[in-house]
Amino acid sequence: MKSVKEAQDIIIKFSKKGETDSIPFKDCLNRMLAEGVFADRDAPPFDRVAMDGIAIQSEQLLKRQHFIVEGIQAAGQEQKSLKNPDNCLEVMTGAVLPGNTDCVIPYEKITIKEGIATLHANDHRQFQNIHKKGVDAEKGDQLLPAGTWIHPGVKGVLATSGLTQVKVVKSPKIMICSTGDELVPIEDKPLPHQIRRSNVYMLQAALKDLNIEAETTHLPDDKPKLKTAIKELLGEYDVLLFSGAVSKGKYDFLPLVFQELGVKIHIHGVKQKPGKPFLFGTQGEKFVFGFPGNPTSTLVCFHAYFKLWLKQHLGIKDTLTFGHLDKDIVFNKPVTNHLLVKTSMEKGKLLAQPIANSGSGDWVHLALADAFLSLPSDQSEFKKGEIFPITFLHRNSF
Amino acid sequence: MKSVKEAQDIIIKFSKKGETDSIPFKDCLNRMLAEGVFADRDAPPFDRVAMDGIAIQSEQLLKRQHFIVEGIQAAGQEQKSLKNPDNCLEVMTGAVLPGNTDCVIPYEKITIKEGIATLHANDHRQFQNIHKKGVDAEKGDQLLPAGTWIHPGVKGVLATSGLTQVKVVKSPKIMICSTGDELVPIEDKPLPHQIRRSNVYMLQAALKDLNIEAETTHLPDDKPKLKTAIKELLGEYDVLLFSGAVSKGKYDFLPLVFQELGVKIHIHGVKQKPGKPFLFGTQGEKFVFGFPGNPTSTLVCFHAYFKLWLKQHLGIKDTLTFGHLDKDIVFNKPVTNHLLVKTSMEKGKLLAQPIANSGSGDWVHLALADAFLSLPSDQSEFKKGEIFPITFLHRNSF
Repeated sequence: MKSVKEAQDIIIKFSKKGETDSIPFKDCLNRMLAEGVFADRDAPPFDRVAMDGIAIQSEQLLKRQHFIVEGIQAAGQEQKSLKNPDNCLEVMTGAVLPGNTDCVIPYEKITIKEGIATLHANDHRQFQNIHKKGVDAEKGDQLLPAGTWIHPGVKGVLATSGLTQVKVVKSPKIMICSTGDELVPIEDKPLPHQIRRSNVYMLQAALKDLNIEAETTHLPDDKPKLKTAIKELLGEYDVLLFSGAVSKGKYDFLPLVFQELGVKIHIHGVKQKPGKPFLFGTQGEKFVFGFPGNPTSTLVCFHAYFKLWLKQHLGIKDTLTFGHLDKDIVFNKPVTNHLLVKTSMEKGKLLAQPIANSGSGDWVHLALADAFLSLPSDQSEFKKGEIFPITFLHRNSF
Repeated sequence: MKSVKEAQDIIIKFSKKGETDSIPFKDCLNRMLAEGVFADRDAPPFDRVAMDGIAIQSEQLLKRQHFIVEGIQAAGQEQKSLKNPDNCLEVMTGAVLPGNTDCVIPYEKITIKEGIATLHANDHRQFQNIHKKGVDAEKGDQLLPAGTWIHPGVKGVLATSGLTQVKVVKSPKIMICSTGDELVPIEDKPLPHQIRRSNVYMLQAALKDLNIEAETTHLPDDKPKLKTAIKELLGEYDVLLFSGAVSKGKYDFLPLVFQELGVKIHIHGVKQKPGKPFLFGTQGEKFVFGFPGNPTSTLVCFHAYFKLWLKQHLGIKDTLTFGHLDKDIVFNKPVTNHLLVKTSMEKGKLLAQPIANSGSGDWVHLALADAFLSLPSDQSEFKKGEIFPITFLHRNSF
């Protein structure tokens, strides 16, 4: 039986960085960039007008307040030049700064009448409202390092840099398997001793939150059939996630089947609640995660162990986040207590309110939680206001 | 010119709850539930065995330590009954508790030899390791109210409840339009005075983070063409998002075109930086958002205004989150300063470190930010450690 820390260290030890894939720009959101992105031009690529107004020579500010408008420099036009330094050109945001000018005065600070722009005041400076060529990055500069998560702002950089194909870390091919002869499809009316399948959909959704599309299947509590099916799945998928059949029950065949198939079991049993029977194994470059079948155990182990594996695969540094326990708790067992909570932010502090529930089989109250605190095994009284590592159960969109 | 608060109040006033849509279960992740979900059975539906082990009659604990094993009650089997109260049945997690038993003792606390289970100790209680029928919810109870965001745990509830079709709030049909003749497609090599389109991809990605698939198009800086195109788009889409052409430039035709098309402009100009020229209008049940064309202005206004509109559409209560400014800042203009920051969690506190940048046209440094703090207009010195409302620029997956 491993401690949570030992189990997580094993996961990290057996994980490795995923391979690289080249995908179209349109599909790259929420993927991990696998190559550095470099500026193909200066940013901005030219002295860029940053306000709508007029462009002048700043040294004229000492001499005059009236400027004849020579013409317009619109965005998207080739660069023009001011012919007479006494004059001005109207300029639009995003346009190239005209030649022979070095100061942009916005419309709010001038009046234009009969082709002449009059300044309201002369308190302007050289280079004002000009977004200078190369000030943000120079051609050849690294804009984004490999290992950048592609969020909307990063997509903007990729677009501006002209990356129609993007090198990202390859997504693992994952199959989610339910076991348990009590399970029937969603569309069925269960008999009194049956329940509908739900863990696989929860796991599939949790993977989709991480931008991974995974398939699901159901395997019977029958050892020969399990063995045949899993052998085939190990050939086709990088990672198999199982819900159920890893504990001490008479039909919990998975550990035995894994052994027979040459899957090395590195973890089977963790000093934690819920999720004690958690299993992790490898067969060459293939990975199996056996989550105990209760819904909370399945979801907690997914986030505590599979997500840790995925972070290594993607190259995401694992940093702990902490939440403030918002209620006194007593827990006397010498195991890590993954406590379901509902979080809220109060004055910039992350509060975690425990969710009352009837145990790891209680899927009704699991749905009310958005995270779990991991309360350490060597402590039994946990006070309101103390901080503990927190893991979120789903993405936060808003 | 509106204050940020006035502008946000106007958005809220003109928004309303979206209509309802019935979609297949498989597509319902990260949508807003539009109907209450009720238990079609008790949860759990039967007295459910919660540990692998044996089931006995608890009153026997006073009398004996040895129990003859009568048989096995597996998960997925019809309920059996203990024939002789002196005996036991082996039971598996997830099985129906056998008739004539009221106590489950796990394998860890017994030894089974030659068909007889021997308890290690007699310290067991009635109903232990039994997940009682109906303890989490009774048939007919509301499991989830309308207005629940469908995250993985909620999908578990929907699956268990047999909801193959789910009523959700309809997603608005959205078109994202770029304007600006300086823009060229990503795959092009821009001329010296051109840049590649990027804001529309940023907005499309930001919408996808909110689980909305939107289309993009580009419109020329040409008033008659703009008018024809927008008229058509208003017929087809619920919401139009524009990037650019809303400021004071000579080719900023959008406000005029909107007026000519009968779009009522409720906001045009907000006392904020960036995003001063922001525009919001309605035409009947249609909505237009005009975001200023600089990348930071576009993204900040999307999150400050469009996301607020979407929250009303979905029925999400708008609650402020606060972050701790992590650096002293001086900002003297009497406008709200949407300050780009990079957040981190330290000891359960949300810290916000300002991102140095060269202004709202700086897409290079925008990509380093993950949020913005909104510093109020009536303050000019902002101290490290003070808290201010924070808005995230992208979803947090991990």
